[in-house]
Amino acid sequence: MVEQLQLQTRGQGLYEFTDQLQGLVSRSGVEEGLCSLLIQHTSASLTIQENADPSARHDLEHWINRLVPERDPLYTHTLEGDDDMPAHIKAALTATSLSIPISNGRLMLGTWQGVFCWEHRHGGHRRSIAVHIGR
Amino acid sequence: MVEQLQLQTRGQGLYEFTDQLQGLVSRSGVEEGLCSLLIQHTSASLTIQENADPSARHDLEHWINRLVPERDPLYTHTLEGDDDMPAHIKAALTATSLSIPISNGRLMLGTWQGVFCWEHRHGGHRRSIAVHIGR
Amino acid sequence: MVEQLQLQTRGQGLYEFTDQLQGLVSRSGVEEGLCSLLIQHTSASLTIQENADPSARHDLEHWINRLVPERDPLYTHTLEGDDDMPAHIKAALTATSLSIPISNGRLMLGTWQGVFCWEHRHGGHRRSIAVHIGR
Repeated sequence: MVEQLQLQTRGQGLYEFTDQLQGLVSRSGVEEGLCSLLIQHTSASLTIQENADPSARHDLEHWINRLVPERDPLYTHTLEGDDDMPAHIKAALTATSLSIPISNGRLMLGTWQGVFCWEHRHGGHRRSIAVHIGR
Repeated sequence: MVEQLQLQTRGQGLYEFTDQLQGLVSRSGVEEGLCSLLIQHTSASLTIQENADPSARHDLEHWINRLVPERDPLYTHTLEGDDDMPAHIKAALTATSLSIPISNGRLMLGTWQGVFCWEHRHGGHRRSIAVHIGR
Repeated sequence: MVEQLQLQTRGQGLYEFTDQLQGLVSRSGVEEGLCSLLIQHTSASLTIQENADPSARHDLEHWINRLVPERDPLYTHTLEGDDDMPAHIKAALTATSLSIPISNGRLMLGTWQGVFCWEHRHGGHRRSIAVHIGR
């Protein structure tokens, strides 16, 4: 089964969509298999992170913004805004695709793991994630 | 086939498990297919690295510890210990999932490639890796 | 279907191979499925990046070369040349494997996304990428 999942972001940060993804897995009827994801953008990415304490996501966002600052004199790709080139770099350093085994019809995530879309731009964007669920 | 592989770590560093993984592939009977892995933790990760010379792994560990130091005044997520927030950041920068094609019943790794669990915490931990082997 | 794709690089930089990959998908006859890739080297990696404006790739290359410089006094793994240890670190920070869903016989990439081999060494190399295409 191949589907497209749509998420609306509201600026930089991590947006969890574990429940929507599990919903797709449940609808697929696949009991044992693999769920693979690809984010169809180059200025947002995917990550699996702790979903219990929001302070971990907050620090992650601040840390990467310090590592990849805006208006770095190194950038020549500047026409699409100050947040565009940093977004491409952050996307390269994190994940564009993920694969999650399925057992008993459930994503085999650890107890504290959630699946997140990581928005790297300041504005809100409609983000598409291609999802394949197979046996 | 879906399995869980268990590894015992003994503090920060790279732990190779290529042989255990190849053992699962051999037991599955899959001759041509795909082996996909997900580490079920947010303070350890996966990487495929050179398995010949241990100095490369040593430098990798030192380099990432310098990039993501402990007790950075930026961190607010500090309740779980000095090594916890750096562990989450390192996990986000490296891989949580990997997919390796299989041919003739063997993982199609390059000559010098090994599959490693990367422990980012100081203590020893029992780490679970979900493995899917399909055709 | 499992295949090996060969690319000739000519020093550091991003080499797009979206067309070759789509060619394999078309030949496989798979209309709906998953295309998974593994680069079989530890001094080159994979990335999905913007394929419209070459300035984004140029900046990405310059940025990572500044983050992971050569002749860092931290390195002990130096026998294979000044560009070798930085190459391993860059490979760990970017992707070794990728998974791309297929729909209507096409890789489900976003409008501006291309698939690239990222060469981290100065010399030209023949790089092998293992490709699995399944349903």
